[in-house]
Amino acid sequence: MIPEYLSLQIPDGPHPRVVIVGGGFAGIEFAKALKNKPFQVVLLDRNNYHTFQPLLYQVATAGLEPDSIAGPLRKAFDGYKNFFFRMVKVQRVDYQNQLVKTPIGSLRYDYLVLASGSATNFFGLDQVKRYAFPLKQVVHALNLRSHILQNFEKAVLTDNDEARTALMNVVVVGGGPTGVEVAGALGELQKHILPGDFPDLDFSDMQVYLIEGTDRLLNTMSPKSGQKSKQYLEKFGIQILLNQLVVDYDGDSVYLDNGEVLDCQTLIWAAGVQGNVVEGIPAESLKHNRIQVDAYHQVIDMPRVFALGDVALMNADEGYPQGHPMVAQVAIQQGRSLAKNFVCLLRNKPPKPFKYRDKGSMATVGRNRAVVDFPQGGQMSGLWAWLVWMFIHLISLIGFRNKLVTLTNWMWSYFTYDKGNRLIIRTFDKKKRSPVEVN
Amino acid sequence: MIPEYLSLQIPDGPHPRVVIVGGGFAGIEFAKALKNKPFQVVLLDRNNYHTFQPLLYQVATAGLEPDSIAGPLRKAFDGYKNFFFRMVKVQRVDYQNQLVKTPIGSLRYDYLVLASGSATNFFGLDQVKRYAFPLKQVVHALNLRSHILQNFEKAVLTDNDEARTALMNVVVVGGGPTGVEVAGALGELQKHILPGDFPDLDFSDMQVYLIEGTDRLLNTMSPKSGQKSKQYLEKFGIQILLNQLVVDYDGDSVYLDNGEVLDCQTLIWAAGVQGNVVEGIPAESLKHNRIQVDAYHQVIDMPRVFALGDVALMNADEGYPQGHPMVAQVAIQQGRSLAKNFVCLLRNKPPKPFKYRDKGSMATVGRNRAVVDFPQGGQMSGLWAWLVWMFIHLISLIGFRNKLVTLTNWMWSYFTYDKGNRLIIRTFDKKKRSPVEVN
Repeated sequence: MIPEYLSLQIPDGPHPRVVIVGGGFAGIEFAKALKNKPFQVVLLDRNNYHTFQPLLYQVATAGLEPDSIAGPLRKAFDGYKNFFFRMVKVQRVDYQNQLVKTPIGSLRYDYLVLASGSATNFFGLDQVKRYAFPLKQVVHALNLRSHILQNFEKAVLTDNDEARTALMNVVVVGGGPTGVEVAGALGELQKHILPGDFPDLDFSDMQVYLIEGTDRLLNTMSPKSGQKSKQYLEKFGIQILLNQLVVDYDGDSVYLDNGEVLDCQTLIWAAGVQGNVVEGIPAESLKHNRIQVDAYHQVIDMPRVFALGDVALMNADEGYPQGHPMVAQVAIQQGRSLAKNFVCLLRNKPPKPFKYRDKGSMATVGRNRAVVDFPQGGQMSGLWAWLVWMFIHLISLIGFRNKLVTLTNWMWSYFTYDKGNRLIIRTFDKKKRSPVEVN
Repeated sequence: MIPEYLSLQIPDGPHPRVVIVGGGFAGIEFAKALKNKPFQVVLLDRNNYHTFQPLLYQVATAGLEPDSIAGPLRKAFDGYKNFFFRMVKVQRVDYQNQLVKTPIGSLRYDYLVLASGSATNFFGLDQVKRYAFPLKQVVHALNLRSHILQNFEKAVLTDNDEARTALMNVVVVGGGPTGVEVAGALGELQKHILPGDFPDLDFSDMQVYLIEGTDRLLNTMSPKSGQKSKQYLEKFGIQILLNQLVVDYDGDSVYLDNGEVLDCQTLIWAAGVQGNVVEGIPAESLKHNRIQVDAYHQVIDMPRVFALGDVALMNADEGYPQGHPMVAQVAIQQGRSLAKNFVCLLRNKPPKPFKYRDKGSMATVGRNRAVVDFPQGGQMSGLWAWLVWMFIHLISLIGFRNKLVTLTNWMWSYFTYDKGNRLIIRTFDKKKRSPVEVN
């Protein structure tokens, strides 16, 4: 299947070669901070774009087009010297021989930086993995968007009340920021958008459920934020089930551990993430599906190998003995920290240990409402929090063009109560787990 | 595969039922013009959106996101009474029993309007059909965009000169507006966009070919426009082969009728269209793969059945004895004309025969350049023609949101020489003819 003329060749240069696996927040920040430094930087990613994951849920709920939250990686490095991007999936690390292995050959490294991010954790629930919708990649968001819209198109095509309700209902599993934000966006669709599109459906038949295993929402945030977000979601009519676990899903029925069964064609799984660990990492270097690093991002027992962001587990930072949260800010700060240490290395200076500066956290719940926790302990909710959320996300989006298009979309949605991206570009077949090509 | 609870049911009302097949320009205009008239209007389409086909080539060449040129059909009819949209593919017309047949059941009509548009005509060249890229649907444009960008990602992964050239080259077949516009956009990518992304490639190795069977470009436009567009394309270094036919393509080599062979991984087929005729139309009603209609859009030999737009062939309009050109303006005007005749029917007035008012035609060739033919015989080229082209396309885009996002994108591209949508969201496998799902 792979043409034989393809091979992973990078010309050798006078400078040591740093190979980065993964073009997420960590990999990009690290590579950018090495601009014009005497290293040959090689970035490998299976996609040619960076995904702004915090806004994936807006693509899934027809608020933004996929192109607004994805930025071409090559463009981000336009004009960089000694920089090479290659679109290829890394299969394995051979650290004894200092090689990364890919389907089109191996590449030698002087230093290796693993920044492959995270993947959805289904906790071994194979049927859930088969039928549920994760929300980690652009294609996940597009598949989910198609699926939800297809279900409403089907709902108008049946006079079977139970089937119709199962098509309209959505179960969101996981009360963290992703779960809360996607549930809020679904509430907004139910309240403001879909009734105009489907005048022949009764939207009081639709029920969005948010299921959380612990006794509160937004566990990583303040109790106030958890409580406020719950209030906001309940205003949308979303049913929040706390202290509940999903134990199975056969594609039609969601089974809870208290024996309850919810008939539902759409299960969104935002209940867990795990490190996206490439093969070849020795078991001693792994813990809880993440790669253990010291305070300098150096992987335990793997010389010349570093790990950053979601995939890395650092216990050395005071205040984070269980490791840092798997969020963009940690990845960004770690990328910069490691790059600084690489420069120290050049100058024969000692490297500095990493200290995470918490800049606060936030989540939005539909229109005009968000919760924000400040690092010093303050909390904020409502309209002003929502404006802060908008501003932070807008300035964080990579590339001025994406900011502009996103702002245009958001302004449009805000003033018109409309979302323009209600398109089923490729219909999705849940049973086959693939989009269907319409010739 | 289709759940048994689905069925195509529309409640019977007091008014006659008009079923429209196809939500393109003709179908939408017709349905809109019947707003609040005593008809039950049922619109059927396999997609839930309208495609603005004249700008598909900009999606394929990374200039616009797909969501900008597609408008949700339900939104276009928000607030319409007696209007029903159903997302379903019509398989067959049973005109003896006044039924349309779909995979989820039949629907009775009082009047049937066939507005199913056109499909690509490969003139029986099966291998070309298998490996070439048509450009009629949003998914075609997305597949082509992925394929072109994938090829450049592969080109940096080979030291085989022939393979690299074949990956970079593009052959466009057909010198009509679509062929000219897509060739121009490729020329712009080659000159302004791709060299920044791929500093390790030599873009003088890349060759775009435009192949046309007759002795000039833009055959349906004035000789001046044909000549000017040729000049503009040649300035981009595009090689134009006139009086040449493509006779075969095996996925690697393009065979011309003069014996020449061009090695190329990307063949874009814009050489022919044909009516997208649904099954069940009697042979007597068909001609040149289009449905023959009289001056009132009534299908010959099929009572209560009408046809509009690309799929309809009307010989009765003076000046168009071979039928009208297959363009948006004809479809729009025919949709309005038929709706007016439906209203005449209500008022017992005689219907009016259709007369096409040519509003002129135009084509753009990259940045700052276009050609425009005025209906009275005038012609215009260059920057002003390009501004006219932009203006007309912008105001024709359905929905204010799409106009706004498109304008934002165009302004951005214009001032920065950048195109922001260089994303391979789903990699495309040409041999399998399907997108590849990344896990």
